[in-house]
Amino acid sequence: MLRTHTCGELRPDHIGQTVTLTGWVQRTRDAGGIFWIVLRDRYGLTQLALEEGVESEELRAKGRELGREFVISVTGKVAERYSKNDKIPTGAIEIRVEQLEVLNAAKLPPFLIEDETDGGDDLRMKYRYLDLRRNPVRRNLELRHRVAQATRRFLDGQQFIEVETPVLIKSTPEGARDFVVPSRMNPGEFYALPQSPQTFKQLLMVSGFDRYFQIVKCFRDEDLRADRQPEFTQIDCEMSFVTQEDILNTFEGLVQYLFKEVKGLEIGTLPRMTYADAMRFYGNDKPDTRFEMKFVELNDVVKGQGFPVFDAAGLVVGINAHNSAMYTRKQLDELTEFVKRPQVGATGLVYARVEPDGNVKSSVDKFYSQDELQKWKAAFNANPGDLLLILAGEPNKTRKALSELRLEMGQRMGLRDKDVFSPLWVVDFPLLEYLEEEGRYFAMHHPFTSPKPEDVALLDNPDTIGEVRANAYDMVINGVEVGGGSIRIHDRAVQARMFSLLGFSDEEAKAQFGFLLDAFEYGAPPHGGIAFGFDRLCSLFGGADSIRDFIAFPKNNSGRDVMIDSPSPISGAQLKELSIATAVEKKA
Amino acid sequence: MLRTHTCGELRPDHIGQTVTLTGWVQRTRDAGGIFWIVLRDRYGLTQLALEEGVESEELRAKGRELGREFVISVTGKVAERYSKNDKIPTGAIEIRVEQLEVLNAAKLPPFLIEDETDGGDDLRMKYRYLDLRRNPVRRNLELRHRVAQATRRFLDGQQFIEVETPVLIKSTPEGARDFVVPSRMNPGEFYALPQSPQTFKQLLMVSGFDRYFQIVKCFRDEDLRADRQPEFTQIDCEMSFVTQEDILNTFEGLVQYLFKEVKGLEIGTLPRMTYADAMRFYGNDKPDTRFEMKFVELNDVVKGQGFPVFDAAGLVVGINAHNSAMYTRKQLDELTEFVKRPQVGATGLVYARVEPDGNVKSSVDKFYSQDELQKWKAAFNANPGDLLLILAGEPNKTRKALSELRLEMGQRMGLRDKDVFSPLWVVDFPLLEYLEEEGRYFAMHHPFTSPKPEDVALLDNPDTIGEVRANAYDMVINGVEVGGGSIRIHDRAVQARMFSLLGFSDEEAKAQFGFLLDAFEYGAPPHGGIAFGFDRLCSLFGGADSIRDFIAFPKNNSGRDVMIDSPSPISGAQLKELSIATAVEKKA
Repeated sequence: MLRTHTCGELRPDHIGQTVTLTGWVQRTRDAGGIFWIVLRDRYGLTQLALEEGVESEELRAKGRELGREFVISVTGKVAERYSKNDKIPTGAIEIRVEQLEVLNAAKLPPFLIEDETDGGDDLRMKYRYLDLRRNPVRRNLELRHRVAQATRRFLDGQQFIEVETPVLIKSTPEGARDFVVPSRMNPGEFYALPQSPQTFKQLLMVSGFDRYFQIVKCFRDEDLRADRQPEFTQIDCEMSFVTQEDILNTFEGLVQYLFKEVKGLEIGTLPRMTYADAMRFYGNDKPDTRFEMKFVELNDVVKGQGFPVFDAAGLVVGINAHNSAMYTRKQLDELTEFVKRPQVGATGLVYARVEPDGNVKSSVDKFYSQDELQKWKAAFNANPGDLLLILAGEPNKTRKALSELRLEMGQRMGLRDKDVFSPLWVVDFPLLEYLEEEGRYFAMHHPFTSPKPEDVALLDNPDTIGEVRANAYDMVINGVEVGGGSIRIHDRAVQARMFSLLGFSDEEAKAQFGFLLDAFEYGAPPHGGIAFGFDRLCSLFGGADSIRDFIAFPKNNSGRDVMIDSPSPISGAQLKELSIATAVEKKA
Repeated sequence: MLRTHTCGELRPDHIGQTVTLTGWVQRTRDAGGIFWIVLRDRYGLTQLALEEGVESEELRAKGRELGREFVISVTGKVAERYSKNDKIPTGAIEIRVEQLEVLNAAKLPPFLIEDETDGGDDLRMKYRYLDLRRNPVRRNLELRHRVAQATRRFLDGQQFIEVETPVLIKSTPEGARDFVVPSRMNPGEFYALPQSPQTFKQLLMVSGFDRYFQIVKCFRDEDLRADRQPEFTQIDCEMSFVTQEDILNTFEGLVQYLFKEVKGLEIGTLPRMTYADAMRFYGNDKPDTRFEMKFVELNDVVKGQGFPVFDAAGLVVGINAHNSAMYTRKQLDELTEFVKRPQVGATGLVYARVEPDGNVKSSVDKFYSQDELQKWKAAFNANPGDLLLILAGEPNKTRKALSELRLEMGQRMGLRDKDVFSPLWVVDFPLLEYLEEEGRYFAMHHPFTSPKPEDVALLDNPDTIGEVRANAYDMVINGVEVGGGSIRIHDRAVQARMFSLLGFSDEEAKAQFGFLLDAFEYGAPPHGGIAFGFDRLCSLFGGADSIRDFIAFPKNNSGRDVMIDSPSPISGAQLKELSIATAVEKKA
């Protein structure tokens, strides 16, 4: 190695030793007759000193020529530091420089390589290799590495085998849009990049692999919302001869292990919540349970008192924001504006404060007497100082809007601490959902998801089909769905029934899922699995809202990598060889 | 779990316990009043017994209805086996069946699910999910998993961080053909799939990651020779602040660790051979050193005796096949045919036997006296019983042909044992190679490979450019290049010199390697790396010639996955959305 130690390694024990360090010049400072250089590498920072009258003028001149981010090698003696810096592990020592070599000069970076940078998003993306020098970004990727290593260690210990499934697969009409790859050797034909290895992992179960996992890149050609990436990573898992209970226990174990190994936290047993309860109490199938603030349904309490909005509403439902009665008119107006946003979708907000004397003061006092309002208070189990926030309208829309308001209030009230983790399982998802516009049922998870055995009889009656629950489950942490899966159908009769419910003819089922159905004819074991969003899981562990800084080289919202300037045109010769032509419509 | 134990787990200690097993019916047999079922899962085989007069007739009837590969669950008591089978770990016990449930029936598989199958390659590929049930194939993938886990464990222990680099990158004109991916959001533009993460790993070094690795899928759209796959996996590594010596030591450590962990073998220190010696003594930059049989150059010995073929040849060179003098005329004719094959390329073969009395008998006796032939014998250090095989012609071609003949003889003489491993480093590769047809030098490794500092001066003289050695190295095991890499150039002046030698203008260099060159302006550390062919490494560990059975779902030589029938046409709507058209030429 060109160094004897890293920049994070030296301690008072090393004093007197001659060492060689390499790294980047973080900053320099000339003060009190000493020229200081702070040297940085992945492992830390070390201070170098060139003192007037001690180190040579030639060396000191060399030091003064260094710019930020120059790559240098220094040899010198480890010495006790004049003024110790407790903030860094090497803060008790410094290096008295004896030799200094510039390994590579550097242009001035376009933004500060500091924890708090002055670089905007665009600049940071264009010079991602410089952004990656910053501690917070590098630490995110170190965290990601640790999560991946721990995941593999845990699953390997549980007899899971990591099997690489192909990246060049076949385009299927289901799901999101595929990225496709023209085949030169098979003109006019295309591979597709996998949206997930779903069919391959089920095939591996048919093959008897028993326990499969893979940390694997997946691809979706979707219009990119904030925080979606066209290529993303999953922890993809499948097990044979299991019930839902086995899957939940196994992967609860994984997540407990990851929290322990990576965060040093014991998260304990994961609570389980039914989909029905999640919707009823949180209006959301991925409830943020770091805070309570459950929905309180008020139809029985508020109707029939002459307030037309409540009387006409399918559902009147509210939340109790504890100790928020001090909210000003301006703040309440903000909340009203918030719920009226198109993405929230409520038409208005009713609020009520519980005053210090126990009286309730509402925004609809002209319709409700104090006696009636006291019933509200009782329904919310509210105390003086509490603020009740109530929405009304079509039940599903209203629940969704109140869920947004609940999260907003949780944020405002400081109840969504990034260092607090509240994981849970949401279970008993409906098997099917009816889409009015399509006039038919769709599989909520996917067509291979198993109904709960005790609900299978409900499939016989058109009126009860929608009530059938699936052996499907999501793991939710802090309001984020980090993983989801299901027990698959392995019984051919049930599978045929499913396809027919979903409106597939035998031929269509064969055309879309042929090779998997074929495989199922040769002895498929009962099996089920789960997939975790790895980028999301890492960002959650890192306490970040965005996945972007947990991906080394992410793409922007137009799917572009602005650093390498991709995608880009390819040559006519390449197109010809691939037997394709671009058909870009001229802009008018 | 639907089972209490696996099929590989039960031992005499379990006798008397009631257990539930699940798995596939490997075979059944009705003999001596007992109906036997051999049940299989990933973990092993267990024998089930249904005895006349002991187990019920109903259960026995159920057993007789089972076909091969049915998936069943059985509950019963573990009992001592009548006749023990020492060949399997569960051979001392059997299960006396009390309950038997068919979890899934199975059609008769199109080939035998046995270690030795009757299925041809095409059938095995079409029903890959059944082929994967076979022990040898499944064991290959289990081995692959273990190699991957051990690789990660070792590199993590050496402070390497696994960083995922993007799959959707930019097409570059260098190297093999890229697979490309049309971008819907950027019409007329394409991503490319990476041939390797080379530029990204160098960027990560510029970012200060210090030690990077990744087990990563790479893609090359090449015409597929036997045992090439369009998608393949690399162990990709890069380190900063290192010399070649550091890289060799680190990755020698990795390979030693893998051999120890996976094969239980101590391979010791890896010998190092220069490229020049490899070519001179083996005619090959990836010599199979499981056996000696070094080349002996004979120009000084054989010329000037009137044999026109030798006199006209640039090089006369041979090998000594010890104890092969008994080769018959027919066998020698076969060898002559062998060396004349176009892919070997010699024009003929001269041979000489050392007889028991020490006399040498050659195929060119009319040109060489016994005295002359005794000089041959001395040159080869040959003994009675040895067979000398000699080729002559243009030096490079002749070495290549003799290398093939050497490998063929090694094979015939049983010197290429798959259980013997002979790893070595080949070092000091030339930096540049001159391609006559192009009339210019090309980088032998890639344009960022560093020349040896002591050879840099040779770049000044056009006559000595070809002699400049690179800090480039390959790891070779048993004649297979399993890994290769180089120390990269980090000095801008040297890099500019390289580009100019390679005939690049500044503009061309910028156009092709722009973002990497930009990055190098901001402080690039000295760095270098290596990449291992992971599929190849696994097949080597598994003692196989082909990588195909170390890949779960490989493609055939036309790049097709015949199981899922991919690639395949996509819809007109998909093409339109992607702003491309297929331009398949009609066949005349």
